[in-house]
Amino acid sequence: MSVAEEVLHKPVTMDDVLAAADRIRTLARKTPVGSSHLFNEACGTSTFFKCENLQRGGSFKIRGALNFLMSLSEEERARGIVTFSSGNHAQAVAIAAAHLGVPATIVMPTDAPKAKLESTRAYGPAIIFHDRQRENREEIARKIAVDSGAVVLPSYDHPWIIAGQGTAALELFQEKPDIDAIVTPLGGGGLLSGTIVVARALRPEMRVFGAEPAIANDWYLSLERGERTAIPPPATIADGLRTVIPGKLTFPIVQTRTERVVLVSEEEIKSSVRFLLTRMKLVVEPSGAVAAAAVLYEKLPPEIRSAGVILSGGNIDLKALAEICAEGG
Amino acid sequence: MSVAEEVLHKPVTMDDVLAAADRIRTLARKTPVGSSHLFNEACGTSTFFKCENLQRGGSFKIRGALNFLMSLSEEERARGIVTFSSGNHAQAVAIAAAHLGVPATIVMPTDAPKAKLESTRAYGPAIIFHDRQRENREEIARKIAVDSGAVVLPSYDHPWIIAGQGTAALELFQEKPDIDAIVTPLGGGGLLSGTIVVARALRPEMRVFGAEPAIANDWYLSLERGERTAIPPPATIADGLRTVIPGKLTFPIVQTRTERVVLVSEEEIKSSVRFLLTRMKLVVEPSGAVAAAAVLYEKLPPEIRSAGVILSGGNIDLKALAEICAEGG
Repeated sequence: MSVAEEVLHKPVTMDDVLAAADRIRTLARKTPVGSSHLFNEACGTSTFFKCENLQRGGSFKIRGALNFLMSLSEEERARGIVTFSSGNHAQAVAIAAAHLGVPATIVMPTDAPKAKLESTRAYGPAIIFHDRQRENREEIARKIAVDSGAVVLPSYDHPWIIAGQGTAALELFQEKPDIDAIVTPLGGGGLLSGTIVVARALRPEMRVFGAEPAIANDWYLSLERGERTAIPPPATIADGLRTVIPGKLTFPIVQTRTERVVLVSEEEIKSSVRFLLTRMKLVVEPSGAVAAAAVLYEKLPPEIRSAGVILSGGNIDLKALAEICAEGG
Repeated sequence: MSVAEEVLHKPVTMDDVLAAADRIRTLARKTPVGSSHLFNEACGTSTFFKCENLQRGGSFKIRGALNFLMSLSEEERARGIVTFSSGNHAQAVAIAAAHLGVPATIVMPTDAPKAKLESTRAYGPAIIFHDRQRENREEIARKIAVDSGAVVLPSYDHPWIIAGQGTAALELFQEKPDIDAIVTPLGGGGLLSGTIVVARALRPEMRVFGAEPAIANDWYLSLERGERTAIPPPATIADGLRTVIPGKLTFPIVQTRTERVVLVSEEEIKSSVRFLLTRMKLVVEPSGAVAAAAVLYEKLPPEIRSAGVILSGGNIDLKALAEICAEGG
């Protein structure tokens, strides 16, 4: 059993996040924390944005990818890794692997957005295409791992990934230690799980919220029912949050400490992307704007006066950006 | 004669910039300095971006406006100020005046872009409209000043404005003291003049460049001929750089220390806006992207290995943004 498999059932601790922060320091950016008078006035909440859209690779995903690769043994790194993703995780793994000299194979769907494919390919990983309708990408990845001896790098459901993603909240709490609440987008749950590990250790009284599209409410339903609940593939514009079921590892972590999952409409997401563009001069992809939408559209309990929001990514192509702008123009 | 008029013929010194930095510290943002591996790879120059698009009011203009207002006597501030602008300067003055409780009158053209008008009006100044074809806005402003006792606040041609704008370069040099060159957009010349005052004092060997649209080449022609030279009103997309002649005060400062004015095409400007949007996740208006375009399209001498670039503003409306995105999609 590889080291990566051995740790699978160990709980993620604050020490793991601190170790991750130390590991990734030179390769991940310490992203700025921004604020906007106009945003605060619009919603009445003093909001601090952790700008992971300005992170290397355009999203927080590089944090977990680096921490995973740097936690492998020398021998495992030499054999390489394999992962599957059509989005930010693919790009993050490609960048991290290129920097660390780890051979990487990425399984991507044949219909992956051209922009995301090109920006992943630029870093030189091997890319294996699969037919999204007919093949299971996870099985393909596992088969490659068995055949080649490569380690499978999950996109969220792994302690090293969760610990790495937690470093974003760690930086935010270090800069803004007094916020009442924190809100993150909820896709696979890696970002919120890492955030919870840090909140538990540093800010036990902090209120923690996840945000997801109302039409991709797998987390909302799962927390309501107390068990992981699947939904049909959702057609939300937030393409990074199209997961259909919470992660096995992330679900119990999120469950212990999340006050509520707040739901936002597609229109609220797009309108928030436009607000961030025109008022704050930041390009945030729809998935990355979901937590901001939750605050802007006043979905948090009204007594919350200040909130940290993770703008989790900014990877959006020109065509999609043009459409979102045109709808609001 | 008011204090503001008395200083008109005094040279701007590094002490003036340092005093301005001290004055504006609490109200202007210390904007982040960003960089992008993809940008550096594309042009071969290690480039550091001073993100004045993330400044309050969406451009560097708040620096000069605050320094001007805070340099007035109590009695002058009570009488108020009058200025004329359809763009970033108007918005900056409105914000600065509102924060300092100074009555402000802003002369704007009847055809000012609705977004810019609204974001200026939100801060509560008196707005006087003029017909751009038939009336001279400077004369209107002077008449208001004579009638009301208000002080005219120029948009670039004043030592207090120049000293204020110099604080952007001051912050950049403090963070990146070793860059070979600095490039700023050239409109009225306030930003480049302030930059030169700082470069002279802190980095006498630094190479200084201005950048302007090729179809708005008043500075290029003026430096070539050794005298202020007017051009017909240019139709460049860089609406903040549509000045038709260099400033009286800014021209001699720019002339002493600018190695060259580099010219960029309209296509190069738009393409740079798209690069900054998609690769760096920053909204930069066309005027604000002109210096970045100069570096990206390799207009600097090839021996320059590192450059500071001021991204001077990010105020662009959704319609214009949608068009620029759609053209590149």
